[in-house]
Amino acid sequence: GDIEAGKAKSMLCAACHGADGISLAPIYPNLKGQKAQYIEKQLKAFKEGTRQDPVMAPMAMPLTDEDIANLAAYFESLK
Amino acid sequence: GDIEAGKAKSMLCAACHGADGISLAPIYPNLKGQKAQYIEKQLKAFKEGTRQDPVMAPMAMPLTDEDIANLAAYFESLK
Repeated sequence: GDIEAGKAKSMLCAACHGADGISLAPIYPNLKGQKAQYIEKQLKAFKEGTRQDPVMAPMAMPLTDEDIANLAAYFESLK
Repeated sequence: GDIEAGKAKSMLCAACHGADGISLAPIYPNLKGQKAQYIEKQLKAFKEGTRQDPVMAPMAMPLTDEDIANLAAYFESLK
């Protein structure tokens, strides 16, 4: 994944998960430093509906596999 | 949640998520410092089957609501 491309795509994510990857409400997970492979798996699961969430489903729907890999690399890179 | 009680219950978790909350394989999420409310929601979802995962379902099944609150408090407390 391309960290800079992921950062450029991450503005919608930041509304809940925080610009620094520390989420803004306790019901949302922190993503700072999270494993990229795990993030990729979850974004694909939200997109495919195998993990159901009314907020994340429409967020994941328009993402390509490349977008997902880039976003995952970006959040993993946050220290 | 009771952090010490959560720590005492966390040995099985540590096998995949790490004794320090940093997971041992990239497919597993880090739990270090994760939001307790999010962890609680996910453990209950695994237990109830609304989030499906073949590894986590049997892990969550025997946990009481108190166990879940304690584990969530413990992982949130890790710095």
